[in-house]
Amino acid sequence: MDTSDTWQETDGALVREFEFASFPDAIAFVQRLAEVAEAENHHPDIAIRYRRVTVRWTTHSAGGVTERDHELAARTSQLA
Amino acid sequence: MDTSDTWQETDGALVREFEFASFPDAIAFVQRLAEVAEAENHHPDIAIRYRRVTVRWTTHSAGGVTERDHELAARTSQLA
Repeated sequence: MDTSDTWQETDGALVREFEFASFPDAIAFVQRLAEVAEAENHHPDIAIRYRRVTVRWTTHSAGGVTERDHELAARTSQLA
Repeated sequence: MDTSDTWQETDGALVREFEFASFPDAIAFVQRLAEVAEAENHHPDIAIRYRRVTVRWTTHSAGGVTERDHELAARTSQLA
């Protein structure tokens, strides 16, 4: 379930807000996302606001969005 | 482990940043915090930025910080 439906490129990052049915569902998503992030050694910024989770992918060393961010954004969508 | 060492009251919320040794440690803290939040039916805003987690307690219905926020902030510190 998601609110913004697509990733937006904002301030040098790919950003999307996901909305879940419950707070535990939102946290379970964060857990899945964290496992992928750690396995890939690439960590998005994550903001949790009750049932809504905003994910922000960027590559600090590149100063913006890379192909890898696009790939991981797509994987993030599949996790939601 | 924490960075700011105390809770700051900012914009009608109790805010504190915690820093952990690793990203998995940060996520494990979020998991513990989420369990308390769900059990108490009071949910803080949580921002994860690699090994740093910012927690923000406020009571929207009261328009600011309540005694309950102070209690849950103290419990949050114990979880870190």
